[in-house]
Amino acid sequence: MSAERALSSEASLAPGVVAGAGAGHATATAAEPCHVALLGFGTVGSAFAELLESRAEEIAALCGRRPELSGVLTRSRGSFPDVLDSADVVVELIGGIEPAREYLLRAIEAGKHVVTANKQLLCEHGEQLFDAARRHGVQLRFEAAVGGVIPVVRVLQESLAGAHVDRIHGIVNGTTNFILSEMASGASYAEALGEAQRQGIAEADPSEDVSGKDSAAKMAILARLAFGTPVSLREVRYEGIEHLHSDDLLYARELGLGLKLIGTAERLDDRISVRVHPAFLYAGHPLASVSGPFNAVTVESPAITEITMSGPGAGGVQTASAVLGDLVSAVTQPAVPMPPARPLELASDVESAFYLHVEVADRPGVLAAVAGVLGDHGASIRSVLQRGIGDHARLAMVTHKLAEARLREATRMIAELDLVRSSPRAIPVIEEEFK
Amino acid sequence: MSAERALSSEASLAPGVVAGAGAGHATATAAEPCHVALLGFGTVGSAFAELLESRAEEIAALCGRRPELSGVLTRSRGSFPDVLDSADVVVELIGGIEPAREYLLRAIEAGKHVVTANKQLLCEHGEQLFDAARRHGVQLRFEAAVGGVIPVVRVLQESLAGAHVDRIHGIVNGTTNFILSEMASGASYAEALGEAQRQGIAEADPSEDVSGKDSAAKMAILARLAFGTPVSLREVRYEGIEHLHSDDLLYARELGLGLKLIGTAERLDDRISVRVHPAFLYAGHPLASVSGPFNAVTVESPAITEITMSGPGAGGVQTASAVLGDLVSAVTQPAVPMPPARPLELASDVESAFYLHVEVADRPGVLAAVAGVLGDHGASIRSVLQRGIGDHARLAMVTHKLAEARLREATRMIAELDLVRSSPRAIPVIEEEFK
Repeated sequence: MSAERALSSEASLAPGVVAGAGAGHATATAAEPCHVALLGFGTVGSAFAELLESRAEEIAALCGRRPELSGVLTRSRGSFPDVLDSADVVVELIGGIEPAREYLLRAIEAGKHVVTANKQLLCEHGEQLFDAARRHGVQLRFEAAVGGVIPVVRVLQESLAGAHVDRIHGIVNGTTNFILSEMASGASYAEALGEAQRQGIAEADPSEDVSGKDSAAKMAILARLAFGTPVSLREVRYEGIEHLHSDDLLYARELGLGLKLIGTAERLDDRISVRVHPAFLYAGHPLASVSGPFNAVTVESPAITEITMSGPGAGGVQTASAVLGDLVSAVTQPAVPMPPARPLELASDVESAFYLHVEVADRPGVLAAVAGVLGDHGASIRSVLQRGIGDHARLAMVTHKLAEARLREATRMIAELDLVRSSPRAIPVIEEEFK
Repeated sequence: MSAERALSSEASLAPGVVAGAGAGHATATAAEPCHVALLGFGTVGSAFAELLESRAEEIAALCGRRPELSGVLTRSRGSFPDVLDSADVVVELIGGIEPAREYLLRAIEAGKHVVTANKQLLCEHGEQLFDAARRHGVQLRFEAAVGGVIPVVRVLQESLAGAHVDRIHGIVNGTTNFILSEMASGASYAEALGEAQRQGIAEADPSEDVSGKDSAAKMAILARLAFGTPVSLREVRYEGIEHLHSDDLLYARELGLGLKLIGTAERLDDRISVRVHPAFLYAGHPLASVSGPFNAVTVESPAITEITMSGPGAGGVQTASAVLGDLVSAVTQPAVPMPPARPLELASDVESAFYLHVEVADRPGVLAAVAGVLGDHGASIRSVLQRGIGDHARLAMVTHKLAEARLREATRMIAELDLVRSSPRAIPVIEEEFK
């Protein structure tokens, strides 16, 4: 046993030789350290540096080599060539497109494994980076770019490699999920956002999160993993949560629905659709019970029915922890390179059930008029709630599935009805599709 | 066995050379097929054979080699040496200890990758198999042994390789979770079991499942993965669901609790505890909302807080699908070998909060007497419900955390109180410990 231990710890970083995890506890720190270059030193970068130091011994025991920050590059400190030169692995936490793209490419070309949490970059220039990594035989790991601490990238790349994925539904932004949870308890959007900012869950400028843009980039990456199709941010139709009223959440609750910002990546025959929008979920949906600053992803595939994974999503420490996991993986485990792209057409005409809310005059025949317009557009009504408020009434209803374009057409016509007092509000409803 | 075949299969499966997933789509089926030997042809075995055939083309596109059943061994069909000789990968779905152990060892010694779903065997003879696989440089994959379709083995072995896992809570038996879900809706244990049998979710002889033994073996395997400590079945304290009353579920609901059969593997300083028993979960616990024949596992670690994974658990098709995933992984990805064992002492004295139910005479002073005994044993009461029924009253209470031994001592003393009409029933309560 002791000969074997020495051997595996010596050979620990040879390509393809998996460093017997847990091997070489005694001699780990004696080996050459593993030099880690860190690009960027913001919230996540500093949390990563701290985590790396505090867990260095444990990682050394696992990898056979003690990780050491060999260089840090910020706008005001360090030069990229120096930092690159001394590194075994490069961790990119600058964010944004440039210079992150250029640095990662140069690191890959220099034969270094790279780890990044940069969703925008992967979404816009992923193919260039994946190709380079494949060509140079290095690992490009990005678990931290999607899903907080949930290992969704690995599960899609490895566990589900042989499965035919039909659909992914995800709550991939913890900030918006926190805000919606607060609103479900009666807070207004502004109050909920303020609370998120006070708790450090939302940034001072929350627009990337609340507009759905952050979620859109993450869903594009999941679509690439699940379907092999590169999807750029501008191809993802996204809608945020800024325009939601707490009323929407409260009425919907009466219909047994909960409101989440849901990303969807799905296969529709030989096309795919990737989109992000607020959606109502039936109480039985696996994502319906996910509240607070959490992320959760449900993957549907005929062979497995579905897997749901959830965990804390927002925060520098969680991201740093996912980055560290990637670093350990890059050093100990050979990776599956990203397979070459298989472009599929993007569908824009998707079907969905809808929740519809409209204020009307409280007179006989109003429900019939509204239902008539819906019927003319092929929308059949699944449930309806009518409630008087003074001389107004509120109609809240849920339709069966229909093409979104037809529903939008119907709501435009409903808005023009004489007896209608407010523009109808329509929000998609997601059921457990696999049942 | 043919040295030539072994060699050529070595080449395409060479460690570190990932058989370019997705590479060679065009030539995939032209390459030498991947020969799969199947040991056992019961429910899971036959589902696996069917799945393998129906997905052969997709797997070929992914692995570069078309998988083909090269031999099947059953009690009445095939000879092991012949089946072994023609195989590149051996899939063991016989179950039980012998001859499964002997066959797997011989396959490993012959340099074949092996895939198994055999939890009993891994629990009792895991170290022998892990050592052999490490020595012979072959993969031993067993995702299907624990957690249904949830990739919990891979997540623990790879994604969380660098994390310090504190605790795992799991619903790792879909059959009992289905039965408890039915009981929560008012069915008796016998009715719920009957329904599970009618639906094919429970076997004719359900004792492995309902006794907690199946869950115990799975928790032992998770403990090995999380803590490195080999745990045999007889070291796991387990308790099943046969003695539960639907009353327990109904009263508990009034206290805001749900009842599940929970496996726990946790670190207690430098010792570990592995156990399985019915437990009440607060509504906010990530496992509380898992109902029906599902599996779910929550992994707690300081760095990640927690990850929860859930998916369908019972059924031959799900197991077969997890086995197929392992087969694809074995052919395309080098595996992390199981690190050598790091034995930790097993703790028997664990602490928990408890739900306690006792029928008493409806007289003044009864609650004080019961609470007095609990107080004397260090059990402080967190919530209590008292309800009169004729000249009896039911006391249902939840305590704060205390050592289980002390609680058991207290319940023995309560049973002897004059005014007590039934033996107290005590069930552990699990909270979200990381908060």
